[in-house]
Amino acid sequence: MNKHAANGQGTVLAIDAMGGDAGPEAVIDGAAYAVRQGVKARFVFFGDETKLRPLVSAARELAGSEIRHAQNAVAMTDKPMHVLRRGRDTSMWLSIAAVEAGDAQAVVSGGNTGALMAVARKQLGMIEGIDRPAVTALWPTPRGRTVVLDVGANVEADEDLLVQFAIMGEAFFRSLMKVEKPTVGLLNVGAEDLKGHELIRTAARVLREADPDMAFKGFVEGNDISKGTVDVVVTDGFTGNIALKSAEGAARLLGQWMKETLTGTLNAKLGALMMAPGLRKLKDRIDPSSNNGGVFLGVNGVVVKSHGGSDARGVASAIKMAASLAKRPFHEEVTTTVKAVMKRREELSEKLTEDMNVKAAVV
Amino acid sequence: MNKHAANGQGTVLAIDAMGGDAGPEAVIDGAAYAVRQGVKARFVFFGDETKLRPLVSAARELAGSEIRHAQNAVAMTDKPMHVLRRGRDTSMWLSIAAVEAGDAQAVVSGGNTGALMAVARKQLGMIEGIDRPAVTALWPTPRGRTVVLDVGANVEADEDLLVQFAIMGEAFFRSLMKVEKPTVGLLNVGAEDLKGHELIRTAARVLREADPDMAFKGFVEGNDISKGTVDVVVTDGFTGNIALKSAEGAARLLGQWMKETLTGTLNAKLGALMMAPGLRKLKDRIDPSSNNGGVFLGVNGVVVKSHGGSDARGVASAIKMAASLAKRPFHEEVTTTVKAVMKRREELSEKLTEDMNVKAAVV
Repeated sequence: MNKHAANGQGTVLAIDAMGGDAGPEAVIDGAAYAVRQGVKARFVFFGDETKLRPLVSAARELAGSEIRHAQNAVAMTDKPMHVLRRGRDTSMWLSIAAVEAGDAQAVVSGGNTGALMAVARKQLGMIEGIDRPAVTALWPTPRGRTVVLDVGANVEADEDLLVQFAIMGEAFFRSLMKVEKPTVGLLNVGAEDLKGHELIRTAARVLREADPDMAFKGFVEGNDISKGTVDVVVTDGFTGNIALKSAEGAARLLGQWMKETLTGTLNAKLGALMMAPGLRKLKDRIDPSSNNGGVFLGVNGVVVKSHGGSDARGVASAIKMAASLAKRPFHEEVTTTVKAVMKRREELSEKLTEDMNVKAAVV
Repeated sequence: MNKHAANGQGTVLAIDAMGGDAGPEAVIDGAAYAVRQGVKARFVFFGDETKLRPLVSAARELAGSEIRHAQNAVAMTDKPMHVLRRGRDTSMWLSIAAVEAGDAQAVVSGGNTGALMAVARKQLGMIEGIDRPAVTALWPTPRGRTVVLDVGANVEADEDLLVQFAIMGEAFFRSLMKVEKPTVGLLNVGAEDLKGHELIRTAARVLREADPDMAFKGFVEGNDISKGTVDVVVTDGFTGNIALKSAEGAARLLGQWMKETLTGTLNAKLGALMMAPGLRKLKDRIDPSSNNGGVFLGVNGVVVKSHGGSDARGVASAIKMAASLAKRPFHEEVTTTVKAVMKRREELSEKLTEDMNVKAAVV
């Protein structure tokens, strides 16, 4: 991390302009949109120079940006292994390489998730003490936003991995939201200590006893995500992905029914007109664009995955997130915390085993 | 199952009138409401006779109902083991006993889920071939309703249990919705065959190859629940519970924001007035009452769990469900199908192992 980034000046973002289904137009428009929204960063766009040049030149906000030519682009159907072997000339590879080389402090790509994860791990490596990466998602709540992780990188997670996710999620939320002590919960099926999987109970115990600095709130349930009961909801990638997609599905269904209601009759249409400002605000609140951007926590660098189908507004959200994280690096913090917690966890292990034997004897 | 029930006449429902936080009033009102909505059944109410008598007498719709006195009621905090040992005089125990004795074809209770499950298993036993019970939930979709199971009975489920859940879910949906060939999907994190847990992939393969009569559609994702992509969504109780609660949470948040929008300004209020009929319809669609009623599949009898906090409308939904299922018993069907599928699964097992070895050799 260079000095400029550390004092919040001169942030440089590497942008994979060829990732995403919406094409480079949406990416370039998104960068311009981000600047209009106050993001202070210089962009390095990676992709087909002949396509990018006119787009970037046309956007006044992007004066000072750089374009670096990439021969190829990763397709949505490319297998990660294929990209690792033959993808060194792709915009995805080169944009991550820019972070690795220190030319940029963060990278944003709308490309294929599996490939992006593989290339990021390969080039940047993992944070010391983190076994596997996790993908974050932001979810709107009445209190602001909740971060859910993992939402898809790992279908299974053991207790140590859940503890690592909790530590990374906390540091991530602190960086992104400027909240000193984010609250953290483990996703489970009941608030009582006896419910859920054995491994979630163990993870809860480790967090409670081995990470005294964390504002760990114990177990939370599915409905707590939208309530905003805690700032950070920790779970494995299988459960997290299903929780988020189920919530999105419900929100979309309700949105659709709401639309039918607002346009059902002439009276309804007139009524909708009268509440137009409120409806606009409601639309903003539930617009997935404003929560776009999944961060690959655990890799040694800031990698933000933008949704492949994002429009300019969505891309701007992902860029905003990358800029926030580039300015406040949290990797050192994660390394230190994970090391301390895992050391204490070792010390606790013996105690945990003893206690469980006592418990088993009592039952 | 007696002859009367089989030809759709003379259905008798056992109602635990003391379960639920809303008290016996909501339960009795709910039964009356169900009758007004066209449910044709005779009720046997279990509970404190001195409380129930005046309530039942006051409801014209409940003429012909019976009241059976129960000394005690199961509390929400009672442990299942305690109820099994000392709960024989509770309204919950006695109402299930009525099904066991053949006095009723189905039971409805708003009592504590764990106790209800334990008492139902103890008294009614399990359907042959089903290892563990599953709890169903109904979820509204643009196409009608989707059934999700398991939503909480088992935190873990192996491949055979998932197959059993699929068979029970299919038979349940057919009985309840009168759909000849319900479509079935397994909840997973991706539509591609390679994703997800090993055990879900095995379950998918067994369903595809060992149950040729099922309209099995393979994997579905979280957002498919609200889309109504399939009629029956199968998963373990941990994932199902979290998926449903996450979706409920999102729906509640949106409902809250919608309400704020409708009442935010004077104009908005006037606008809301103009679209009142549409809003009423919208409210009905998202009202959880209309989807109340979780069925304990796998026990040898129809046991419907009503949400503890349900009002009369919610109780009526659960009663309607019990009446539909009592008229169209599906336990024989489940027994036969499970037996056939598990036999074919045995035959396939060897083939499966062989194929996997081939696959492993190729990779």
